[in-house]
Amino acid sequence: MAASSAFDPLAPVCVLTKGIEPGTGLLMTQIVEEELGSATPVVGLSGPNHAEEICKGLPAAAVVASDDPDACDFFKALLLRETFRIYVSSDVVGVEACGALKNVMAIACGVAAGMGMGDNTLAVLMTRGLAEMTRIATAMGADALTCMGLAGMGDLVVTCTSEHSRNRTFGEALAKGVTLAEYEAKRHMVVEGARACYSASELAEKLGVDAPLTEAVRMILDGTSLGESVQTLLSRIPHTEFYGLYGSEE
Amino acid sequence: MAASSAFDPLAPVCVLTKGIEPGTGLLMTQIVEEELGSATPVVGLSGPNHAEEICKGLPAAAVVASDDPDACDFFKALLLRETFRIYVSSDVVGVEACGALKNVMAIACGVAAGMGMGDNTLAVLMTRGLAEMTRIATAMGADALTCMGLAGMGDLVVTCTSEHSRNRTFGEALAKGVTLAEYEAKRHMVVEGARACYSASELAEKLGVDAPLTEAVRMILDGTSLGESVQTLLSRIPHTEFYGLYGSEE
Repeated sequence: MAASSAFDPLAPVCVLTKGIEPGTGLLMTQIVEEELGSATPVVGLSGPNHAEEICKGLPAAAVVASDDPDACDFFKALLLRETFRIYVSSDVVGVEACGALKNVMAIACGVAAGMGMGDNTLAVLMTRGLAEMTRIATAMGADALTCMGLAGMGDLVVTCTSEHSRNRTFGEALAKGVTLAEYEAKRHMVVEGARACYSASELAEKLGVDAPLTEAVRMILDGTSLGESVQTLLSRIPHTEFYGLYGSEE
Repeated sequence: MAASSAFDPLAPVCVLTKGIEPGTGLLMTQIVEEELGSATPVVGLSGPNHAEEICKGLPAAAVVASDDPDACDFFKALLLRETFRIYVSSDVVGVEACGALKNVMAIACGVAAGMGMGDNTLAVLMTRGLAEMTRIATAMGADALTCMGLAGMGDLVVTCTSEHSRNRTFGEALAKGVTLAEYEAKRHMVVEGARACYSASELAEKLGVDAPLTEAVRMILDGTSLGESVQTLLSRIPHTEFYGLYGSEE
């Protein structure tokens, strides 16, 4: 924002918050567009980008997404550095949906880690989690390829495995019996993934998409025991890997 | 193998070794088929399966792949446990190619970690690595979807992030100036990914597929300095994420 306090409706805006609005199913870029009006170009930025590491100048890459290519180019030119690569995407829905949904999967991975499970289990959760994210995102209109890229798989992997991830850390606490309210009160922070879990669950039902991992996290958030939630999840494991994707059959 | 020493040519064989034969580009299942003759059903097993954790009964999942569905069902019934889920695939080439290629990416991740890079960088390498694996595997005849599953992304993630991975550990040593010969002599083990790197590089060239990460690992194995190898890699980073996949253009 310039020194002037005047709001320029033509200045492009970059949205960094990730989430899905309860009730409407709107993504954060869509809410900003709704609030600022159609004259303001809105861009979403996402990717495997822990701020702690970016600040140290360690190599990273991000995606800027918008249906306005000029707005993408504006933020690409603004942010590009030798150690910070910027890719452009026109699939805003895919980039933003993955950004919100991966936080739910990070909670699931945190729960598994908190229950003492190992790297094999986490890899299964990430793989099935990406398939679930892809089913939901494509039902929202996203391109499946976006889910395979930096804003999808890349961000998912870093959020599910990194110690810097608050959603993953919350999942570990959840496995040890801490509730969402207790965790947020103690840490003075909002767990984005818990909010996203409820909206994603609602949205998946509305879209008729199977979302067993999101449902399992929602059950645990609602106080269902870990044992029962995991049993419900295991009983829903399908016999083929790729059901519901690209027209493949169960 | 039964107590009898007689070889039963009709008994199905499950191949666990991962690799690509230098010169021929053959996968391990193809070599076993060639050696045993066409009467023997051959199955490949792959997935995010560190043995240390399977032995402890921690939940994991694997894929058995063959063009012989009966042979797949045989090994599925033999191996299936409450904590070890088995999926069946008919895409042997995809499952086996990913199993070999992911070891090359694990070396790349180890090199990056050994150079002091963080989780963001590793996530970029895994994401670009999966795209590279998908380009090579599909050029070999694989289904791209296999690369998104347990035998592709799942195995890649566990191999690139886990301390149990010898290819990742070798990459870290490589970044500290240890050569392949020194490492193998000291550890009394073969680094599968180093062998796979040379065969994959040869195969990618033959197939006309762009494989910048494989090339960077090969350069480092051949003694090119880390700085020069990383510079060569960075200079080849494309402007779009998904070039060479599904007919998308640069």
